[in-house]
Amino acid sequence: MDVYDSLQKFEVPEIIHGIGALSIVGKSAKRLGGERVLLVTDPGLVKTGWVDETIEHLRAEGLKYVVYDNVSTNPKDFQIEEGAQVYEKKQCDVIVAVGGGSPVDAAKGIAILASNRGAIQDYEGCNLVTQPVPPMVCVPTTAGAGADVTQFAVVTNSAKRMKMVIISRAIMPEIALIDPRLLMTESPELVAATGMDTLAHAIEAYVSSLSWPLTDPHALHAVELVSQHLVNAARSKDMKSLEGMSLACLEAGIAFSNAILGAVHALAHPLGGFYDIHHGLVNAVLLPVVVKRNMDHSLDKYARIAKAMGADTAGMTARAAAKCALDQIRKLIDDLGLPSRLSQFDVNLEDIARLAEFAEADICMQTNPYRYPRDEIETLYREAW
Amino acid sequence: MDVYDSLQKFEVPEIIHGIGALSIVGKSAKRLGGERVLLVTDPGLVKTGWVDETIEHLRAEGLKYVVYDNVSTNPKDFQIEEGAQVYEKKQCDVIVAVGGGSPVDAAKGIAILASNRGAIQDYEGCNLVTQPVPPMVCVPTTAGAGADVTQFAVVTNSAKRMKMVIISRAIMPEIALIDPRLLMTESPELVAATGMDTLAHAIEAYVSSLSWPLTDPHALHAVELVSQHLVNAARSKDMKSLEGMSLACLEAGIAFSNAILGAVHALAHPLGGFYDIHHGLVNAVLLPVVVKRNMDHSLDKYARIAKAMGADTAGMTARAAAKCALDQIRKLIDDLGLPSRLSQFDVNLEDIARLAEFAEADICMQTNPYRYPRDEIETLYREAW
Repeated sequence: MDVYDSLQKFEVPEIIHGIGALSIVGKSAKRLGGERVLLVTDPGLVKTGWVDETIEHLRAEGLKYVVYDNVSTNPKDFQIEEGAQVYEKKQCDVIVAVGGGSPVDAAKGIAILASNRGAIQDYEGCNLVTQPVPPMVCVPTTAGAGADVTQFAVVTNSAKRMKMVIISRAIMPEIALIDPRLLMTESPELVAATGMDTLAHAIEAYVSSLSWPLTDPHALHAVELVSQHLVNAARSKDMKSLEGMSLACLEAGIAFSNAILGAVHALAHPLGGFYDIHHGLVNAVLLPVVVKRNMDHSLDKYARIAKAMGADTAGMTARAAAKCALDQIRKLIDDLGLPSRLSQFDVNLEDIARLAEFAEADICMQTNPYRYPRDEIETLYREAW
Repeated sequence: MDVYDSLQKFEVPEIIHGIGALSIVGKSAKRLGGERVLLVTDPGLVKTGWVDETIEHLRAEGLKYVVYDNVSTNPKDFQIEEGAQVYEKKQCDVIVAVGGGSPVDAAKGIAILASNRGAIQDYEGCNLVTQPVPPMVCVPTTAGAGADVTQFAVVTNSAKRMKMVIISRAIMPEIALIDPRLLMTESPELVAATGMDTLAHAIEAYVSSLSWPLTDPHALHAVELVSQHLVNAARSKDMKSLEGMSLACLEAGIAFSNAILGAVHALAHPLGGFYDIHHGLVNAVLLPVVVKRNMDHSLDKYARIAKAMGADTAGMTARAAAKCALDQIRKLIDDLGLPSRLSQFDVNLEDIARLAEFAEADICMQTNPYRYPRDEIETLYREAW
């Protein structure tokens, strides 16, 4: 066995969190040596005003900039290529991403192509990005993906209609500016869906075979924060709830970037690639289905998740307590009024064999507490349907 | 108020932890772009064999190297200057530190002078290092200082016989390789003294006015690990206890680098500078004295520390529980057979006014839950005497 395999790793960007963090975006890009910024975002965010505010802060530091906003949900390979062309043509030297998971993942893809060349498809998998990439400052506008603090990027291969997972130390952003103010412009539906993504990150990182004491407390605290704040955040968007979700997303991101994920994400990626469904909504459907089947392979950890979600598990067996985690997750999805079946998204049952093939090969399956064989993955999809 | 003041920050190096981590020191230095290594260590460590093993790993990667080992406990300004001259003369481009807090702090000082010039005295204080410093790989050989994961360096001003605290983002090492094997060669006395340094870091970071959810769980877990493992680690040096202490030191380092410290360190620095006493031993004497006086200003947190140290505080008031933390700390010092009075170190009572002057101005005092005025600092010193 290579010594690397037995070593535990932990890496995060420089994290700055709090109301007003966006205001140092210009200073941050400049500190990284940037003079010409590629600002990656999406059309919806341009409308919120956050992009204008970002530009003001870039200008205040005398930075030149160009905006690339042609990024969709589940960002596509051709968007990455187009963004990389803009980066090169405008001779940018730093990337600022303002957005949810999609603009941040697109920014990472653009960064890869800017210095490593080739096609984004070449980098699918683990540690295939060999050249350093341009420095990145990420400013999340949702409390969901956590991509601003991770070494993950997920990009859709448009020809194959599948998601490619890219994990590489090189694409960890340099600076994450996390400003809970920016969550104010999310729709209630987006708060709910992205919040379920955060919950899935936290739970999967906590039960991951690579979890360790540097990731566990953040994963578990993120679970607790989601339980306390997500319903209120979606309903009323009061600042206290948004701050709670902002911190939950951050801590879940720290945990899963270093402990990786599990079967929920392995099953979610093919669905996102094939049907272009929002990642958070898919996770909300899959999470209870996977937890129910995963539970026996990590009873104590699911029991602790139940407790973190507010269940009174005193005196219970580990199995009974773990079952409470499932109840809490279902109740949360119900309270948020989210879809609970894949059939609500026009997912075709006939595609399940093909989806299961991709899910089995997904890198996130490797750290699930149980390695599902192909037939059991098909069963999971059917149960979720 | 500047927006910076209200933002919370979190930054750590890339951390790699586990048995065998030392073996990737060559690869790590090379990955940072290094070709000629300045290896900073001390004469005691040369004797342990870890320096030879480090050199083998550097050679295996084709790296050139020069060893600078003239580093004492409480490293001195003139040692930093000498090391920086070696760095320049040999045209080094990366620094590897193998050692306890002293070689790692010396390496940071050398890194500062290598690219910022001037005298090390110019950088005392917060964020005065303006130029990027050479990349650093740090390999700790004690479970105490945690300097391998912090933005702190403490260097003695030999003319003034005082310690200078340097806090700067620029001196955060790039990579920390934490290999519990290296603790095997520590003497039992050193395990005990450095372990008390870790406990002081954890407790001070936890009650610090800058603590937040990204630092709290690591601080509290470090307290728990010290309580579980330090006595065994000092007595028997079994690998499980050493691994526990290694993780405790790491988590305490993560916590205090981001939440800063408190009155124990503010009072310890002048003593270390003036009498050249081992920092861990000074902390062991000061910790219970400060905790007793600090307690009222953070009752709930000290109550949680008591619980983390294994006290049964069920049904107790916060004050009674907090008092248990003090009892646990005193018992630990007693179990370790450490000195418990400053008078055991030939500290002169007549110097107390001068020591208190430095302690009041020490940067660590700013984040203590209570700002002690000069006369109360003198009282603390007298109580510890």
